[in-house]
Amino acid sequence: MSDLEAVLAHIDADQPAALERLFALLRIPSISTDPAYLADCARCAEAVAADLAALGFEAAARPTTGHPIVVAHNRAAPGRSVLFYGHYDVQPVDPPELWNRPPFEPAVETLADGAKVIRARGAADDKGQFMTFIEACRAWVAVTGALPVPVSIMLEGEEESGSPSLPAFLEAHGDELKADLGLICDTGMWDAETPAITTMLRGLCGEEIVIRGASRDLHSGMYGSAAANANHVLARILADLHDADGRVTIPGFYDGVPEIPESLRAQWEALDFDVAAFLGGVGLAVPAGETGRSALEMIWSRPTAEVNGMGGGYQGAGFKTVIPAEARAKVSFRLVFDQDPEKIRAAFRDFVRARLPEDCEVEFHPHGNGRAVAFDTANPAFGAAQRALSEEWGRPAPFIGAGGSIPIAGDFKNRLGMDVILAGFGLDDDGIHSPNEKYNLACFHKGIRSWARVLAALA
Amino acid sequence: MSDLEAVLAHIDADQPAALERLFALLRIPSISTDPAYLADCARCAEAVAADLAALGFEAAARPTTGHPIVVAHNRAAPGRSVLFYGHYDVQPVDPPELWNRPPFEPAVETLADGAKVIRARGAADDKGQFMTFIEACRAWVAVTGALPVPVSIMLEGEEESGSPSLPAFLEAHGDELKADLGLICDTGMWDAETPAITTMLRGLCGEEIVIRGASRDLHSGMYGSAAANANHVLARILADLHDADGRVTIPGFYDGVPEIPESLRAQWEALDFDVAAFLGGVGLAVPAGETGRSALEMIWSRPTAEVNGMGGGYQGAGFKTVIPAEARAKVSFRLVFDQDPEKIRAAFRDFVRARLPEDCEVEFHPHGNGRAVAFDTANPAFGAAQRALSEEWGRPAPFIGAGGSIPIAGDFKNRLGMDVILAGFGLDDDGIHSPNEKYNLACFHKGIRSWARVLAALA
Repeated sequence: MSDLEAVLAHIDADQPAALERLFALLRIPSISTDPAYLADCARCAEAVAADLAALGFEAAARPTTGHPIVVAHNRAAPGRSVLFYGHYDVQPVDPPELWNRPPFEPAVETLADGAKVIRARGAADDKGQFMTFIEACRAWVAVTGALPVPVSIMLEGEEESGSPSLPAFLEAHGDELKADLGLICDTGMWDAETPAITTMLRGLCGEEIVIRGASRDLHSGMYGSAAANANHVLARILADLHDADGRVTIPGFYDGVPEIPESLRAQWEALDFDVAAFLGGVGLAVPAGETGRSALEMIWSRPTAEVNGMGGGYQGAGFKTVIPAEARAKVSFRLVFDQDPEKIRAAFRDFVRARLPEDCEVEFHPHGNGRAVAFDTANPAFGAAQRALSEEWGRPAPFIGAGGSIPIAGDFKNRLGMDVILAGFGLDDDGIHSPNEKYNLACFHKGIRSWARVLAALA
Repeated sequence: MSDLEAVLAHIDADQPAALERLFALLRIPSISTDPAYLADCARCAEAVAADLAALGFEAAARPTTGHPIVVAHNRAAPGRSVLFYGHYDVQPVDPPELWNRPPFEPAVETLADGAKVIRARGAADDKGQFMTFIEACRAWVAVTGALPVPVSIMLEGEEESGSPSLPAFLEAHGDELKADLGLICDTGMWDAETPAITTMLRGLCGEEIVIRGASRDLHSGMYGSAAANANHVLARILADLHDADGRVTIPGFYDGVPEIPESLRAQWEALDFDVAAFLGGVGLAVPAGETGRSALEMIWSRPTAEVNGMGGGYQGAGFKTVIPAEARAKVSFRLVFDQDPEKIRAAFRDFVRARLPEDCEVEFHPHGNGRAVAFDTANPAFGAAQRALSEEWGRPAPFIGAGGSIPIAGDFKNRLGMDVILAGFGLDDDGIHSPNEKYNLACFHKGIRSWARVLAALA
């Protein structure tokens, strides 16, 4: 039996214990964006650091200006080094009433189709995913006493809240963290049977706007139509963001957005993406974006503007005929190719100001930004990882795009000069950022086995 | 000393006790729209009924399908009868953090300009106002042992939540309630020194809409732009409500909306309304409504569409990049002249449906409706009341319009065949429906004296 075979057998035998270790992490409500969970985030970081230390890593939860960052090194092996990135923080759970169980009391459930899933906030994004890598390391250490390649691990606690502390941390510790290759497990499979390596990621620019009109809420009878209504001003701004063809109307928004090469377009068409199933799975039927674009283009290679949250005036039970003094929205832009997040932010602010009545005010709050990123698949590590994944799953693993933003992938490339292999085992129906988030038990198990193979392939 | 002079002297001497009686009512958080305050509404109704019974009225808090309605009769006097209407329920207090004191712990505060005000939710709308009438009755009974005219009183508990129980109640008890003249104290003065009788009121039609897109909140990276965003659909609908000239775009909306007669326009122009002060008082400067209309027209004789509340997606602290499955808005229309509330409601629903992507759904929830109403000032009671008010305040009391809706005034006219004298002592800066609602102590005191005079004038 080869080392790898022994490691894979160990992984299979150790599944119940691996699941229990994941559950322990999922029980910690490490919601980074909500200050009420500050202590939980710290506790989560400490728990992961302690686990890595027990595995032979030199590991610590390092303080930052925000939530701690776990850094661990086990670089005893020879060869080209890797830096694995994940995040231990999770999204808020609201609306809580839509969950079928308490979001921080994980359990394995069996779905109608027989699939077993781990149900909890963070099951897929990202605790279940990063634990596939840690469990693979654990198996290598248990079976051979060592890792096949030099491994560093960095686990962030602010990925879901814009990573405010990360740039300074990378600046301060870049030399220590830098490796020959980055590994990230925060992406999805092509489908439930087919793994994939994501080689293109959209960037992100988030902005919160607060529109202020009158100095207080007004009675809509006494002031109705004579006084500026902050809801009206905001609705106009948000509606104006898209034209009738679904294009974003902010001047200069599409600067640096080329058409994709014909070769890539052909490769994507060959994937035979089932848009009816993609939208049908979430109760929709009609692609809502730019007229004439395929759904894969929309989510992989086209930029977006989405209103993630908005609110103003009376939202409680019953009715209240106020003219609200204030209305707010959280707007995010998914960016592609060479779009500059700060240019987009500035252009959006100008766009808002241009629609502001002269007696109203606006306040802007930036929330994170990251450029889009694409990796050079000619790097032989990509082929090695692709073969390892294909062997585990019995199907060729394609190179794909992804609509989501993983700013750290751009940081690894641009700040630390590393190419990054983005291989994750999430599925489209995992419900990340939604109620009832889940991670398929098969993805967890085969994900661990996949990383065990990738580590061997990189050696 | 005439009876009236003795009554006015009694009112002056009894002010501290009258204030304490009002405070006792203001301490009851009778928020009708929020089920959490059900018992408080009942308690408030019982307290008022008990007070009226002690004054010699045959009084009871009568059950309805919603909150009780207080009905009281003291019809011993000869002459033309009156039915006084008020409401003991109040608006919600949110946002509570903007109050300068607990909203249900009333106190007299002295403003920077030296004016003394009663600060509490309901101080002006409507507890302070209806107590001016009850205190006037109390003084007449105390001094003369009787009321100058037959008086009935009806105090509703659902005015702030669309009066759902009122139509059936009026249907069942119309014969009992009907009088020769209606009196309502839920309107404002022209300014702090000048009383007024409101002879035109706008109607109201409220509608809550719920837009549903995907079956759950989606990740804006995975689905961004390909999936319908309920916030976008809602913002488009709400923005489309008005054109660039501030006109409401719903087809048929202006049916039954004539220009006001030149004579009325001239009268309104003579009032020399200070629009800069009106808007400046609430931190605004630019009339926001229809281009080319005066502010008085906008609030008295033109219909409006206002978005009183809207919300969708993540509104908590921080950022969450979701595509919301659901977004909602509360929209109300102020109606004038012959606009039909149910026609407007139907036209609005068609307007919404016409803007709905085919894979989205909409749910409608109606919230109250009432036609606009205008009274015939040739009725001699109007002249008598106008003279009584002018004597108390030392200034002529004009007949004015009002932007607010008091559906009961239309019911009194259309169902019970009564003209209604709308005389109230509210001021524009009372902040009704807003945080820090107040009622000027002088308005309370002179309001009581005013009603004492009006009762004498009607005898």
